[in-house]
Amino acid sequence: MHILVIGAGGMLGAKLLIRLCAEGILGDKKITRITRYDAIIPPPPPTSTFPIETFVGDLSATGEAEKLIAIKPDVIFHLAAIVSGEAEKDFEKGYRINLDATRILFEVIRKVGDGYKPKVIFTSSIAVFGAPFPEAIGDEFFTTPLTSYGTQKAIDELLLNDYSRRGFFDGVALRMPTVCVRPGKPNLAASGFFSNIIREPLAGKEAILPVSDTVRHWHVSPRAAVQFLIQTATLNTEKLGNRRTLTLPGLSCTVAEQIEALRKVAGEDAVKLIRRESDETIAKIVSGWPRNFAPQRALALGFRAESSFEDIIRVHIEDELTPRKR
Amino acid sequence: MHILVIGAGGMLGAKLLIRLCAEGILGDKKITRITRYDAIIPPPPPTSTFPIETFVGDLSATGEAEKLIAIKPDVIFHLAAIVSGEAEKDFEKGYRINLDATRILFEVIRKVGDGYKPKVIFTSSIAVFGAPFPEAIGDEFFTTPLTSYGTQKAIDELLLNDYSRRGFFDGVALRMPTVCVRPGKPNLAASGFFSNIIREPLAGKEAILPVSDTVRHWHVSPRAAVQFLIQTATLNTEKLGNRRTLTLPGLSCTVAEQIEALRKVAGEDAVKLIRRESDETIAKIVSGWPRNFAPQRALALGFRAESSFEDIIRVHIEDELTPRKR
Repeated sequence: MHILVIGAGGMLGAKLLIRLCAEGILGDKKITRITRYDAIIPPPPPTSTFPIETFVGDLSATGEAEKLIAIKPDVIFHLAAIVSGEAEKDFEKGYRINLDATRILFEVIRKVGDGYKPKVIFTSSIAVFGAPFPEAIGDEFFTTPLTSYGTQKAIDELLLNDYSRRGFFDGVALRMPTVCVRPGKPNLAASGFFSNIIREPLAGKEAILPVSDTVRHWHVSPRAAVQFLIQTATLNTEKLGNRRTLTLPGLSCTVAEQIEALRKVAGEDAVKLIRRESDETIAKIVSGWPRNFAPQRALALGFRAESSFEDIIRVHIEDELTPRKR
Repeated sequence: MHILVIGAGGMLGAKLLIRLCAEGILGDKKITRITRYDAIIPPPPPTSTFPIETFVGDLSATGEAEKLIAIKPDVIFHLAAIVSGEAEKDFEKGYRINLDATRILFEVIRKVGDGYKPKVIFTSSIAVFGAPFPEAIGDEFFTTPLTSYGTQKAIDELLLNDYSRRGFFDGVALRMPTVCVRPGKPNLAASGFFSNIIREPLAGKEAILPVSDTVRHWHVSPRAAVQFLIQTATLNTEKLGNRRTLTLPGLSCTVAEQIEALRKVAGEDAVKLIRRESDETIAKIVSGWPRNFAPQRALALGFRAESSFEDIIRVHIEDELTPRKR
């Protein structure tokens, strides 16, 4: 089995690679080759029993998708996107990367013909939803994005569904919860603080909390997010019928509950490193975000997220702060 | 006020032209010029007190949208599309006409800049919905189209909402009910029979009914559909916030109710001209179509469809079968 990972250099792509290389199989099929693709040079790949090749390029550029699809990968993880803030700031770039590149990829797959019908797993986002919405958003709620990023993801979902219905590929679009705790350095994304207030104190560093304790949001650990990708790649998509977009499970919790979990896991000293410094701009952005979902379809298909924020913190400690045995 | 009508040669476009020319105003503004655009040469325009110019071309071709927008129309009615059956048969043409041409138009408007912000009224479709759905589809139900046409319309809606949110134009997308009674000759569209079984018997001709009496669907007269377009062009769009797609009111009725209305209006002799000849293919297509809606937002904004199928038949008789006084 040959796997193509587009956006392999991102946080989720890199973690997916680690897991695929560690297991050597996807479902019951042996992995024979992985192709990594990203806009920037990704870190060296993990050790593997099969060849891993790496391409760097812009998927929206002429000939790029053709190059990747010419080798007819069996499974394609398409995780590449520019983030919400950048897509909002640079309108043309957002549409080029988040919409055109995806459509070009789909078109190139369609044009292969000859019975070629790969599995395509695409990461969408809860940004397809825009306030006002119910306290818990159900599977049949409409998409009214309030960002260009959310618009582009909602359009990609529609394209993926149509191309799958027409039989050009076997696609699934996954609306990921906000991944938390994100490893690495604090970033400037509006959602960054959800991870910062856990990751930094655990490392003995101060973190800024720009919103109120009562803010509620929808989270999943990086480990569960990778599990979602793997599980989707091996899912019998006949169960989805013509509705191939899934809102995934997550944990709905408040910032206060996040902090309480940090206290339980790491003690009062860690909590003291959280400095409250309200930021009206971030508070306003966050107030338009979904707080909770009722993802019945994904639950019925066996997808599971963490059930407590303490678990999410423990995953971070195990996967990021515990030395690996190799 | 300068008005551009794209798709001016279609049934709705032609009727819109007749009304605009008869009234000479749109809202409280005097019409100074109308530009008609279509892929095929439209019939001669109605008499008017202002100049009407006509262009024929393919909106998706290079330079076409630029040509139309260079004259900076104040109001743009974008009614052009290829129909569901054709978009399903010719995948590439469907995406080119129903998605790319619309996006090109939006892009050309955006690039004018310089404070140019026209009103854009776009006709979407209830084909954005795909079964299974509730008996009456509410305003917040999700879009899961089962045709490429429905997919293209759903994508256009998302684009229109994003371009409006960003301030590039002032757009509204209208999900029209099935227009009935369509004038003209019987056509081969799967939905054609809804009009055929009324129009043909009223003209003393036989019509074929390919589905069961119990089929329920969602209708509006051509006159009310034109009224929707006019009303939208003069709507204060601040009332819509960032949700600029409206499901419009219609009349939900069964084929049996249609036939009963025909009996009341035109008598038993007309009804006898309906010949039942079941067609499994059409029955299957129609079974996936919406039957009823609860369009609360559009109703609250003052949009109104006919409240009985007899009224729909009377509109047809008045507008199509009664000689015009000029």
